Amino acid sequence: MTDGTFAVEPIGCVESPLVDLAEAPRQGDEGTPESWLVFAPEVAEGLRDLRPGTDVLVLTWLDRARRDVLVVHPRGDTSRPATGVFSTRSPSRPNPIGLHRVTIVAVEGTRVRVRGMEALDGTPIVDVKPVLGPIAER
Amino acid sequence: MTDGTFAVEPIGCVESPLVDLAEAPRQGDEGTPESWLVFAPEVAEGLRDLRPGTDVLVLTWLDRARRDVLVVHPRGDTSRPATGVFSTRSPSRPNPIGLHRVTIVAVEGTRVRVRGMEALDGTPIVDVKPVLGPIAER
Repeated sequence: MTDGTFAVEPIGCVESPLVDLAEAPRQGDEGTPESWLVFAPEVAEGLRDLRPGTDVLVLTWLDRARRDVLVVHPRGDTSRPATGVFSTRSPSRPNPIGLHRVTIVAVEGTRVRVRGMEALDGTPIVDVKPVLGPIAER
Repeated sequence: MTDGTFAVEPIGCVESPLVDLAEAPRQGDEGTPESWLVFAPEVAEGLRDLRPGTDVLVLTWLDRARRDVLVVHPRGDTSRPATGVFSTRSPSRPNPIGLHRVTIVAVEGTRVRVRGMEALDGTPIVDVKPVLGPIAER
């Protein structure tokens, strides 16, 4: 689309009781079961400061989404007006990167248990970032 | 690392007075000049509901970052303890996806002027998402 593409290399994947798109909640704060983030051993060093009780942002690659969609009905509800995808959180979008705010419940080596993760079982994880606090705390 | 990689296809790029890593602010709320998000004509339909005065999340591909770094000193300050990258906002990380909360100042076709974007001139844009409000407003 512009010059060149970049290769996203998954660093792990989601292990979740959610296996079916039809029963997945739309957002993680809408009644999601706990799930595990299972990371590749190669990135273990990067995980060393994750702590239970804190919130983090998890970025995923929504590999079951469509990439050729630019306009959607929000939350799949056709009674709502068609909306440009960049004004929605629809998984279908040119680069289907999911953004999930979750709470860490436990850390066991490269397995991190979280609350509030709405992604389906097997979804690739591409990044984890801290939630930013006020400037003074950075 | 896990099975397979995915191709991120930029949907636009940042046009900014920030051209030098050394003078870039660490975060967008730390005194950043206004900049333009310049989108590819192919994604114009997806932009149609972006409105001046609203905040959005912009995802970028930080193409000048290193991808082989798992531990960093936060904000490049060696007096601060080395920290796993997934507990920092360092651009250097296995998948250098930048996450920027910005305020839309103006929309002119596929050019969107924003405040609070700390990315360097030429940085590829990969996604735009709305900031989520309370559940009742979705």
